[in-house]
Amino acid sequence: MLRLEVVFLPPATTPDVAVVVDVLRMTTTATVLLELGLEELAVVAASEEARAVAERSEALLIGERQGMPLPGFDHGNSPLEFTRAEVQGKRAVICTTNGSRAVEAAANARHLLLGALINDDAVAERALALATDEITFVCSGTDGRVSLEDIVGAGCIIQRLLERTGSAELSDAARTALLLAESAEGPAALVRQATHAATLSALGFDADIEFATRRGSSSVVGERRWREPARFS
Amino acid sequence: MLRLEVVFLPPATTPDVAVVVDVLRMTTTATVLLELGLEELAVVAASEEARAVAERSEALLIGERQGMPLPGFDHGNSPLEFTRAEVQGKRAVICTTNGSRAVEAAANARHLLLGALINDDAVAERALALATDEITFVCSGTDGRVSLEDIVGAGCIIQRLLERTGSAELSDAARTALLLAESAEGPAALVRQATHAATLSALGFDADIEFATRRGSSSVVGERRWREPARFS
Repeated sequence: MLRLEVVFLPPATTPDVAVVVDVLRMTTTATVLLELGLEELAVVAASEEARAVAERSEALLIGERQGMPLPGFDHGNSPLEFTRAEVQGKRAVICTTNGSRAVEAAANARHLLLGALINDDAVAERALALATDEITFVCSGTDGRVSLEDIVGAGCIIQRLLERTGSAELSDAARTALLLAESAEGPAALVRQATHAATLSALGFDADIEFATRRGSSSVVGERRWREPARFS
Repeated sequence: MLRLEVVFLPPATTPDVAVVVDVLRMTTTATVLLELGLEELAVVAASEEARAVAERSEALLIGERQGMPLPGFDHGNSPLEFTRAEVQGKRAVICTTNGSRAVEAAANARHLLLGALINDDAVAERALALATDEITFVCSGTDGRVSLEDIVGAGCIIQRLLERTGSAELSDAARTALLLAESAEGPAALVRQATHAATLSALGFDADIEFATRRGSSSVVGERRWREPARFS
């Protein structure tokens, strides 16, 4: 049966700065792609739409479903499968199960960044430069379930951010993420405990997990340059 | 103090079909503009951004703050101030206090329509054609407060929709809107009771209010043709 819902007011506010976190692997891979000189990365959740966008913009098509490359796509979602020769100066479209959906869900944010463990300090710096009142970390999760690796990723960025700014008002969720990042085991060990790490490991992607936990190894931050207005006709 | 928030999962789901309702006056005016042959209407909440978009696309600049035209804009937000000669085949950017913000808030919907009293039946028809599971009406409100006219507008569209489809699962909010639309006083009288109607009346816009309550007088529905993916660099 068709459902009807009325929202009496639009969702409270447009987020100020949103940081989408998908440590395994979308935001990690996106960071690598931009570091290798990719000119522009379009993020799309639906595979048919991704194909259409790539065709229109003559872009590389990158993506996965359940960890494996999509049929007809140029590349899967491993951060380790790209060379500078392949991506420099090019455009690409990335379509992944969870990260791309999180980017779409955060579409109305004023500023939108892609955060990972590998660029935690750079994201903290950029988010602080952009924020006027609030920074919202959007964890991508895995198939609708909360993901340990994304909470750890958000916590690591929050930790770097507090090192830079001294103080901020943390929600309980932000505090939870920070507590994980500060735990004795360390972020890398926690990421390896994540359900999705086990899935990727079973698919032979252990090197991806190791790479994704190299905290602060990149100074590149994917940032949406322009929020396209909705166009009606 | 800077606030930090972590969302452990992205907002539940991407809305299937979202209908933004701003009876007084954005979605009413948008419907008129498209009826007069406007080729494309971009909706932008921030006035500086609206100026930039209009400049890039050589578009007419339409908008208001607190009901009055914005300085340097080509037009205010009255549905009665446009001629076919002015808008046919042109592009325009519209920037209003509440309606444009609601459009941005609903940006991640798969399909996005502009609904008003003047096109209630046409919106119902189009929403039904597009929907796979849920239609969400996003009432624009007025400066962060719930607006009677938008709830009535949503209720009128729901009424038309039920006439067409026979049955649907109504949330309590959807039922509330429908009850208003079915009330003995009638939608037009209810819209005139709205706080924002009094504000517009005081500014001399009585004719706009009367026009905005002509239920089903238009068969045009503003529909976002393409959801631009977020592009990172």
